[in-house]
Amino acid sequence: MSTFGQFFKVTTYGESHCRSVGCIVDGVPPGMELTEADIQPQMTRRRPGQSALTTPRDEADKIEIQSGTEFGITLGTPIAMIVRNQDQRPKDYGNSTMDLYPRPSHADWTYLEKYGVKASSGGGRSSARETVGRVAASAIAEKYLTLSHGIEIVAFVSSVGGIHMFPPSSTHPSPSTNPAFLSLIETITRDKVDEFVPVRCPDEAASKRMAEEIAAFRDRHDSIGGTVTCVIRNVPSGLGEPVFDRMEAMLAHAMLSIPASKGFEVGSGFGGCEVPGSIHNDPFIVAPVVPPLETGATRNGIPRPRLTTKTNNSGGIQGGITNGAPIYFRVAFKPPATIGQAQQTTTYDGDENGTLEAKGRHDPCVVPRAVPIVEAMAALVVIDALMGQQSRQVSRNLLPPLKPAAKSVVGGAEAMAKAVENGDTKP
Amino acid sequence: MSTFGQFFKVTTYGESHCRSVGCIVDGVPPGMELTEADIQPQMTRRRPGQSALTTPRDEADKIEIQSGTEFGITLGTPIAMIVRNQDQRPKDYGNSTMDLYPRPSHADWTYLEKYGVKASSGGGRSSARETVGRVAASAIAEKYLTLSHGIEIVAFVSSVGGIHMFPPSSTHPSPSTNPAFLSLIETITRDKVDEFVPVRCPDEAASKRMAEEIAAFRDRHDSIGGTVTCVIRNVPSGLGEPVFDRMEAMLAHAMLSIPASKGFEVGSGFGGCEVPGSIHNDPFIVAPVVPPLETGATRNGIPRPRLTTKTNNSGGIQGGITNGAPIYFRVAFKPPATIGQAQQTTTYDGDENGTLEAKGRHDPCVVPRAVPIVEAMAALVVIDALMGQQSRQVSRNLLPPLKPAAKSVVGGAEAMAKAVENGDTKP
Amino acid sequence: MSTFGQFFKVTTYGESHCRSVGCIVDGVPPGMELTEADIQPQMTRRRPGQSALTTPRDEADKIEIQSGTEFGITLGTPIAMIVRNQDQRPKDYGNSTMDLYPRPSHADWTYLEKYGVKASSGGGRSSARETVGRVAASAIAEKYLTLSHGIEIVAFVSSVGGIHMFPPSSTHPSPSTNPAFLSLIETITRDKVDEFVPVRCPDEAASKRMAEEIAAFRDRHDSIGGTVTCVIRNVPSGLGEPVFDRMEAMLAHAMLSIPASKGFEVGSGFGGCEVPGSIHNDPFIVAPVVPPLETGATRNGIPRPRLTTKTNNSGGIQGGITNGAPIYFRVAFKPPATIGQAQQTTTYDGDENGTLEAKGRHDPCVVPRAVPIVEAMAALVVIDALMGQQSRQVSRNLLPPLKPAAKSVVGGAEAMAKAVENGDTKP
Amino acid sequence: MSTFGQFFKVTTYGESHCRSVGCIVDGVPPGMELTEADIQPQMTRRRPGQSALTTPRDEADKIEIQSGTEFGITLGTPIAMIVRNQDQRPKDYGNSTMDLYPRPSHADWTYLEKYGVKASSGGGRSSARETVGRVAASAIAEKYLTLSHGIEIVAFVSSVGGIHMFPPSSTHPSPSTNPAFLSLIETITRDKVDEFVPVRCPDEAASKRMAEEIAAFRDRHDSIGGTVTCVIRNVPSGLGEPVFDRMEAMLAHAMLSIPASKGFEVGSGFGGCEVPGSIHNDPFIVAPVVPPLETGATRNGIPRPRLTTKTNNSGGIQGGITNGAPIYFRVAFKPPATIGQAQQTTTYDGDENGTLEAKGRHDPCVVPRAVPIVEAMAALVVIDALMGQQSRQVSRNLLPPLKPAAKSVVGGAEAMAKAVENGDTKP
Repeated sequence: MSTFGQFFKVTTYGESHCRSVGCIVDGVPPGMELTEADIQPQMTRRRPGQSALTTPRDEADKIEIQSGTEFGITLGTPIAMIVRNQDQRPKDYGNSTMDLYPRPSHADWTYLEKYGVKASSGGGRSSARETVGRVAASAIAEKYLTLSHGIEIVAFVSSVGGIHMFPPSSTHPSPSTNPAFLSLIETITRDKVDEFVPVRCPDEAASKRMAEEIAAFRDRHDSIGGTVTCVIRNVPSGLGEPVFDRMEAMLAHAMLSIPASKGFEVGSGFGGCEVPGSIHNDPFIVAPVVPPLETGATRNGIPRPRLTTKTNNSGGIQGGITNGAPIYFRVAFKPPATIGQAQQTTTYDGDENGTLEAKGRHDPCVVPRAVPIVEAMAALVVIDALMGQQSRQVSRNLLPPLKPAAKSVVGGAEAMAKAVENGDTKP
Repeated sequence: MSTFGQFFKVTTYGESHCRSVGCIVDGVPPGMELTEADIQPQMTRRRPGQSALTTPRDEADKIEIQSGTEFGITLGTPIAMIVRNQDQRPKDYGNSTMDLYPRPSHADWTYLEKYGVKASSGGGRSSARETVGRVAASAIAEKYLTLSHGIEIVAFVSSVGGIHMFPPSSTHPSPSTNPAFLSLIETITRDKVDEFVPVRCPDEAASKRMAEEIAAFRDRHDSIGGTVTCVIRNVPSGLGEPVFDRMEAMLAHAMLSIPASKGFEVGSGFGGCEVPGSIHNDPFIVAPVVPPLETGATRNGIPRPRLTTKTNNSGGIQGGITNGAPIYFRVAFKPPATIGQAQQTTTYDGDENGTLEAKGRHDPCVVPRAVPIVEAMAALVVIDALMGQQSRQVSRNLLPPLKPAAKSVVGGAEAMAKAVENGDTKP
Repeated sequence: MSTFGQFFKVTTYGESHCRSVGCIVDGVPPGMELTEADIQPQMTRRRPGQSALTTPRDEADKIEIQSGTEFGITLGTPIAMIVRNQDQRPKDYGNSTMDLYPRPSHADWTYLEKYGVKASSGGGRSSARETVGRVAASAIAEKYLTLSHGIEIVAFVSSVGGIHMFPPSSTHPSPSTNPAFLSLIETITRDKVDEFVPVRCPDEAASKRMAEEIAAFRDRHDSIGGTVTCVIRNVPSGLGEPVFDRMEAMLAHAMLSIPASKGFEVGSGFGGCEVPGSIHNDPFIVAPVVPPLETGATRNGIPRPRLTTKTNNSGGIQGGITNGAPIYFRVAFKPPATIGQAQQTTTYDGDENGTLEAKGRHDPCVVPRAVPIVEAMAALVVIDALMGQQSRQVSRNLLPPLKPAAKSVVGGAEAMAKAVENGDTKP
Repeated sequence: MSTFGQFFKVTTYGESHCRSVGCIVDGVPPGMELTEADIQPQMTRRRPGQSALTTPRDEADKIEIQSGTEFGITLGTPIAMIVRNQDQRPKDYGNSTMDLYPRPSHADWTYLEKYGVKASSGGGRSSARETVGRVAASAIAEKYLTLSHGIEIVAFVSSVGGIHMFPPSSTHPSPSTNPAFLSLIETITRDKVDEFVPVRCPDEAASKRMAEEIAAFRDRHDSIGGTVTCVIRNVPSGLGEPVFDRMEAMLAHAMLSIPASKGFEVGSGFGGCEVPGSIHNDPFIVAPVVPPLETGATRNGIPRPRLTTKTNNSGGIQGGITNGAPIYFRVAFKPPATIGQAQQTTTYDGDENGTLEAKGRHDPCVVPRAVPIVEAMAALVVIDALMGQQSRQVSRNLLPPLKPAAKSVVGGAEAMAKAVENGDTKP
């Protein structure tokens, strides 16, 4: 259905040709400064067709907050947001081939199978236009994540067709063992990624080759897929709700809900299957002391985890729960289904085989545009998991300290006794 | 949390060292024949250490239905099921290294970070023992799917370490374009897979090499990962609930909730990113007429979809909705974290670096055992999506037929009028 | 939170002084004719201050469908609806007593306690303005309920202060045993109720006395409570989801979520506690044959229940499940908290006791306005329960017929065999 | 369905004649001491047929914790609990009238209408046996509520038939204005109530008359209803989740989910409709300073609310949110449907009218037994609302303090600035 999240609950609506698209976000913490200016930038990054962020966009995709704030402060009540559609009229059906033939690998036919009614745009809510509501909601989530924990979420294009930023090799079946990759995910920023618009692959050489590859497919009226890699930094430990809502399960759910996505891998991923356990295991080390960010967490004396891991094949998640190390994952996007080439296929009623030709210009590769959507869905997962764990911790903090002799707690009686006296839930 | 599904709602419980493990299943259709004999076989397939299914197991993991049936018929009320644990006592903490050092890449440390209390087994619910409840619940789901639609779910091991049943190649970056693969997924059965116990890779040569590979890692006290491929056949069209609960999103969620899983890909998956759209797109054709199975669907006159696709790079899902073609996907499992080799790591409190040595025998590769769990989670996803879509269709069937001139329906006025007169929701 | 329903899921948003109020409805059956003209009438009935429905209202509270329909047909996707607020600016805080003193028995103080931020309107979402979204959503639900089953929902004012349409007496501690009451609920219509605007009590004499009572309280700058009775006719049997979501539990939840409501009783209710079981029990009789309405149910051959009850102290619900007889219930509404009289109270910070005087005109009695809101919430409960039960029945219909000898089914082998052959789920 | 709660999620299972009844509780805070000894007392209070609590019961209804604790400490994972049924065999159908005639006003017929299959006990899950799981779950909830906030929940019988502890009068249409009632709810304890077993009405004279009334109905093979009043003390302010999950809405939902309940009223309730607003409104006063209980809240420096109300017609809830004053409400229970008297009714198939006679001894009045079940459901509502609000507050606490000049916060710039500096969310 159209709702995501248990605590930070996002419900989206809208097709390509209706009055507006948007969302309601229920569960936003009260007392946060929030205006449209916090949301518009990601809306603009999400828009198709941009060649550079520095070029100010026209007024398209202007977000309007409907409710849930007053004087620029969140009230804790649902925040509704809408973006007007510019073309609000559904199209009449004529005799174009698009009306007779369901587009191969597109949602035209399955939407009709499911609903028995067909939106004029074909795939109804399968359009990327639907993601407007997600991105708007996630901008609120991201603001909270930044203010409360300094969490950073950055996605970038890691491959287009066969061109990889970190090609798998026998040495590194997964980039998770590649120091260059690990260094990148520790430092990459959105600003850096956007320097590489339109491709959004933060590597000069790879970016250039990818741009050429996309251009070649465009010129052939063909299309090509690719992958987006995303990193989430400064995540607290303890996030993720086993057994079914493990952190990676929620991320996978979120990523595979993005139109055109076909795969997800976290940490070492598929390549990691080929790495021996003795290398793959991430030994624990004491986490280095870093000057803390000025965040809600530090203001409230919530420490960063005491341990971290020496390597990070786990991708920041162990047993479905975050360990505080950077979470990183990769998402596969297929080649866009709508292509300019003629395609042999059959009509909706199956009575006639023939040729479908899609008129107009089509996007030969979605991955650059998918970047802010991947970030958005990641933010929705993280805020929900964070709220779930915060809820557990605050519940626990109101319980009496456990008696030092309690056998079920690891770390030694003294350590535990000290920890619980301090109200510390993390002995 | 520990509940999965909206319609067929499964809640599991249990750790390794408590009285029992099990589940409650709410939403089972009433009036279905069901006894423990329907459930025990998958429980037995799930058990570790078996060398062949033909060897009858001892009485371990015996399922007991507690409620929700009478005289072998489901009542439509919650079905609780339990399996006693053989070792019901949590272990006392001693001075073993396991008590001082969190196991690298295991859930020991993150569980403690999350809950502030540590189960004696270390990772608490991260143990594979937890999957008992899932497999029990899914056996009910599978019975319903078979009776109602003849749905078949078969998983098998497709790679161990670097040994692949269908190695990626420049011709076939994804097996989705490989006729041998497509042929296999149309015909493979569980019986066939189980002929290849203990590896469960239904290919003589690959199976043998995988067994050798696993043995080599075992002998080195090391571990290795692998992948499981799963196919779901005879799925009706129209399943999956966009936008967030697309069919592939729910499958990804389910698969990444399995312990040790690190990746998911559906249809062409990651390899499909390298296939041009003009090849990747699946043209529509009229579905061949096959003698229908005797199922609830055929008894009720519910037809199979009129169209199918010539190729199946989509993996049976387009726009997040099933199209009736086989669904297939692949799941990556990392090398098991618990290995016999000594590992340099640090203590829970970070005070001391040292060497952790895990005593005892450890499973060097989980993928053969993951096979029935992948099938189980697939069944839970499919039944929930099926019930969601059945609910929509029955709601719609009670509405007046749309007027023939309604413009929003594709296929021409006459076709639609005819369809709706027949109460057909799929014009 | 702000979402109601599992199948027909309504999420509302909006305060009094933001841009708009509205809702998203997810789960609307596809293929239903729907335009704003279906929704506006209940919006207009909901508006305050109307003296009669025949007086066309100005353009206020105009509903705008944003999504989910094309060419006047529902697509099965989320339907967003908005109503602009006329006063979109939150008020600045000045020195009025309203800013210093939380209004007694109003939501001013508790909203501040809960959210730590105060909407300028005081009680934030506690304003009746919030119900706009509910009423809009329910108009869609009602259209479906009418088309599919001919379900009718009619509410009316049954008491104002001490003036009761059916005063409790020693003969009839509950109206449930009063033939005049039972006759009324079988025949009352919305048109009839609206003849008695502004009071909406469909009894000439009682209505007149109530109007006088309300006027007297208004003149004293005081307020008074009352009750609304609601009947739901033509409900199928089998609705309601034990154990927690029994039909009466969901109705109670829905009704007590309406601002100012303080009580709920179904069937004989509180008065029924004083009626002996031998009188209170409703004997079963064969349901009289009535010419069936032309509905989706009759078109699909779904029969009305075979039995009904001779009396109806149960209020159409037994064991939490509807039996097909009219459901009726009563809701208590307290006297409005905002009154013109001076009230001694204390300031937000508790530093100063003083006198709060609310300026302006205030509604001395909410029950007439509550009538369409009670109907709206009833519709949301019924459609959700209906979809839940339809989903169960369609699931069951795909199972093989039970063997006639199955012992767990009552009614005799022959009856059952015959029933299951016919695909009848209600032997 | 069979799950209640969003944060403290209880799923129950079981009929009268299956192996066991019980529940899974997901969301229990980790680190709480918990053994069967915490749960058994309420299980025993719930049991039918007891004449006094001081009489030790036999071993019936013995609770067994299956999971989620180790060494008597909660792990934060699901806690499953089971109670064996003593009669585990469903009954064969014979020719008794009970097999031919659905019992009037019982769930026999509606369960069959809903599920199409009939449990041998007739009403399946409508049996009071089902409440075992609820009471077990709530014992965990109550322990947490006591430890964290000193919350006390006490229910008692307030009327049997026409015999009321606080009969409505023209002076006090609702007991909410009666000082004797208000004094009682501030002081009543479970021990005091249990002194009045078997009636559980804590008033010598009323209790005696009620006992006689019940005996008279028993002797006539008839039955009678009654009401249970419940008070919840020491509830924090801010609980309840508008708009749909207002505190009173959740309480109403919970209470109407109890078998045989027909009505719910909170605070002044139905009687309050007859009280003028000028009397009904509860003026605010500064809350008296009381020596704080030793609880988790006081250990964590969480203060009781600064204000309270002089009167309490609101029943501790305003705008759907608790204000810290005692919550009290009343629940109506109908006369039991199963009576010894012969009843004229019709058969399941409607073919034959006749006489149903229920053999055996039947409970002539359920209200004394309903007392612990009302307390149980109240505890489940309160803990869920508490966790929801704690989650909101902790989320908010991580945000930067609002600037003092923010206009949307009431209480004056200085007060607010001071409050936010202190991390106080309740300026």
